[in-house]
Amino acid sequence: MELFVYSASHKDVVESVDVARWEQYREADGFPFKAMWYCIPPNEKGPQDQHPEIELSLVMRGTATVEAGGRRSTVEQGDSFLLSGQEAHTVYNLSADEPLLVFSAYWMPPAATGDGAGDE
Amino acid sequence: MELFVYSASHKDVVESVDVARWEQYREADGFPFKAMWYCIPPNEKGPQDQHPEIELSLVMRGTATVEAGGRRSTVEQGDSFLLSGQEAHTVYNLSADEPLLVFSAYWMPPAATGDGAGDE
Repeated sequence: MELFVYSASHKDVVESVDVARWEQYREADGFPFKAMWYCIPPNEKGPQDQHPEIELSLVMRGTATVEAGGRRSTVEQGDSFLLSGQEAHTVYNLSADEPLLVFSAYWMPPAATGDGAGDE
Repeated sequence: MELFVYSASHKDVVESVDVARWEQYREADGFPFKAMWYCIPPNEKGPQDQHPEIELSLVMRGTATVEAGGRRSTVEQGDSFLLSGQEAHTVYNLSADEPLLVFSAYWMPPAATGDGAGDE
């Protein structure tokens, strides 16, 4: 068994957000997805983001407010949100005192690794 | 964006554990892993488990005590543990009052889906 501990992880700072990418763990090399934790301080937001990967996020601590596709959704601790490839999104921490910790797994959609015929 | 909400999910009861398998979500069909939440009540444990899939677990609420490979590890909320394929494990909730909620992603190891030459 291997443990992955957020507090002990290496973090990069992206604007006000701490990002702990799992590339730092050799064991994650063989996963069928990439992964990271990110932590948004109280009253802050992450940068607007858009990328080809599908992204499944889990709210580990705090409450996320996620803006995507013209709507805002509240995602409580324990719950999850899924973003399609290329879906623009911004994650807010509207709490005045509690950090927001999110775990994300992300992977390329099957079509993007296939024949690329572009017939959609 | 799609939301997956534990409290609204369909659960099966396995001994004292509530298990919410993500097969109930059509969106999870295309994931490169299977997924579930499970919730262990205070002072309870999950059944001893052993399966060919690699299993990555995230502690969403509470604190997990995980027995595997002859050792017990404490995994705090926000942190994660990884079990190899066929690694026997038991998850305990040693809290007297707090439920333990875990999210697990699991997938077959690459060798098991490959040529199966058995040369390990």
